[in-house]
Amino acid sequence: MRSEKIRAVQFGCGKMAKVICHYLKEHDVEIVGAIDTNPQLVGQDLGEFAGLGYQTGVVISDDAEAVFEQCDADIAIVTIFSYMPEMFTFYETALRHGVNVISTCEEAIYPWTTSPSETNRLDKLAKMNHATISGSGMQDIYWINMPCLAMAGMNKIKKVSGKVSYNVEDYGLALAEAHGAGYDLNRFEQEIAAAESLPSYMWNAAEAICTKMNWTISSIQQKNVPFVLDEDVYSQTLGRTIPAGQATGMSAVTSIKTQQGIELEVECIGKVYRKDDGDMCDWFISGQPDLEFSVSKPDTVALTCATIVNRIPSVIAAPPGFVTAEKLQTAAFPSFPLHSYLQ
Amino acid sequence: MRSEKIRAVQFGCGKMAKVICHYLKEHDVEIVGAIDTNPQLVGQDLGEFAGLGYQTGVVISDDAEAVFEQCDADIAIVTIFSYMPEMFTFYETALRHGVNVISTCEEAIYPWTTSPSETNRLDKLAKMNHATISGSGMQDIYWINMPCLAMAGMNKIKKVSGKVSYNVEDYGLALAEAHGAGYDLNRFEQEIAAAESLPSYMWNAAEAICTKMNWTISSIQQKNVPFVLDEDVYSQTLGRTIPAGQATGMSAVTSIKTQQGIELEVECIGKVYRKDDGDMCDWFISGQPDLEFSVSKPDTVALTCATIVNRIPSVIAAPPGFVTAEKLQTAAFPSFPLHSYLQ
Repeated sequence: MRSEKIRAVQFGCGKMAKVICHYLKEHDVEIVGAIDTNPQLVGQDLGEFAGLGYQTGVVISDDAEAVFEQCDADIAIVTIFSYMPEMFTFYETALRHGVNVISTCEEAIYPWTTSPSETNRLDKLAKMNHATISGSGMQDIYWINMPCLAMAGMNKIKKVSGKVSYNVEDYGLALAEAHGAGYDLNRFEQEIAAAESLPSYMWNAAEAICTKMNWTISSIQQKNVPFVLDEDVYSQTLGRTIPAGQATGMSAVTSIKTQQGIELEVECIGKVYRKDDGDMCDWFISGQPDLEFSVSKPDTVALTCATIVNRIPSVIAAPPGFVTAEKLQTAAFPSFPLHSYLQ
Repeated sequence: MRSEKIRAVQFGCGKMAKVICHYLKEHDVEIVGAIDTNPQLVGQDLGEFAGLGYQTGVVISDDAEAVFEQCDADIAIVTIFSYMPEMFTFYETALRHGVNVISTCEEAIYPWTTSPSETNRLDKLAKMNHATISGSGMQDIYWINMPCLAMAGMNKIKKVSGKVSYNVEDYGLALAEAHGAGYDLNRFEQEIAAAESLPSYMWNAAEAICTKMNWTISSIQQKNVPFVLDEDVYSQTLGRTIPAGQATGMSAVTSIKTQQGIELEVECIGKVYRKDDGDMCDWFISGQPDLEFSVSKPDTVALTCATIVNRIPSVIAAPPGFVTAEKLQTAAFPSFPLHSYLQ
């Protein structure tokens, strides 16, 4: 059992980072660096930024290179964008310094086929630097490993259907725009519906399920449909009202056929919520027997941030390389300080 | 990867055994022996008993000793009673022959404190004979390992509440009587409510959760309440109508306090169902954040039998001794024949 606390660099100081900083402190992780390029944050003490109630002495810096040079971190928690190409240089900086990476980037949950070039280069770089990089968050447990565990009690499986939703208001501007929130329908059609290069977050999760289940994908398709209301909706993230008739987000349906004959259909709904909307995480698996389970109105932000923090020992203990979430050791709630789970 | 099929002895030929035999065949397990003392079954071909549609050449025998002597089985699937003391000699016979054991016996899911003498003797006997014994079934995944996995995405846990139900009609006479089905309220009070020695099936599952979560139990209590209807209900298992006012089953509420301050309250409802009743498996975990999930009307018989079969490689691969389900490797759906999961 390791007696030295885990040292983490918070890479990206947005909405999720604030929650993660609280959870890190509560599980005895030392935050040894913080990085963001937002001029309003640079120079701010991390304790002030996250509302910890005290000064940490760790100041948010826009010089990632200097931050990694000036500490011996165990892990970088990278919470910036949703897709691999825009994340590459951030990951590259941490790995080049031999620092493990865990990231909320949704594509990073299983990016092997949607961003093969970036993923393979990072995998090789990680191995050369004896470090591990993994994506995690809500998808890790509730979209991948829990459905797989639920299926372990079935005799036969025919089709896996999953439906999840989240409020794009909770994840910052980058994610809201990736969902076409506030786009008129022409712009949605051109930039979102026609953009084959942007897999939904469930696309990547469904590929992870197939890998864990030993199912060989023979085809995969996605259809993006705008969510439109006949009333105006105010978006805090966009800082403006989305008029009736414009997209408040999107529903992406990903359909997978496998060589084993098993089908998957996963629907990912991300939109600006109205008052009575809640997150969904519903699974129906047809087979022998049929199996239906759901997480009721999951608090996706809290579950994502807690999963990221609780997963840190799994990532540090994993072999070097890009190790996707379905291959990490089984996730566990940390009843002891996080470093005590390391050797 | 092992190329030789797994060889199993079906020990106990009741309702569950029929389903298990189908699943074993579908996952390429050889059934090499079958044991039951029911004179109406002894001498019957297992294929005929289970409705496989063909003769297997394996004949149901009432001589357990002879069955284990005359084959080199990998595992005995023991499906007879619900509590450890009445199961001891069956387990002992298999282990003495060096044969691994997996059992639907509900107490066997975590019997360390409810039947310490039997469990420790079996643990030692298993180790002496290089064999493993484990309990499994519905509880393994849906009452223990899935709630624990769901909690792995939380930051703090205050209280774990679980509520499950099942139809005692599905599990044969022994289980129905253990639930007081068809007892008048006086008999229920004397034989069920006052019987401190009979833990509910959720009692044992909740202890397994505490062990997996590293929570130290400081007190555990149970209250058994009869289920009573104001209408008659026919029970196929009892072969008679339960008159209005008599128990159709029971609700057992087990309350656990831990030294970590986390509480557990688990309710186990077993009763003779009416037409519109369905099984329950509902979990609510309060903490940061709160988490609620449920399996909707689970097919408990099919899930129990499939879990038993899918778990066989986990039990064979486990170290010798009494290895309870929370310590087995993570359960997985077998996409390949079961023996290919062994080395």
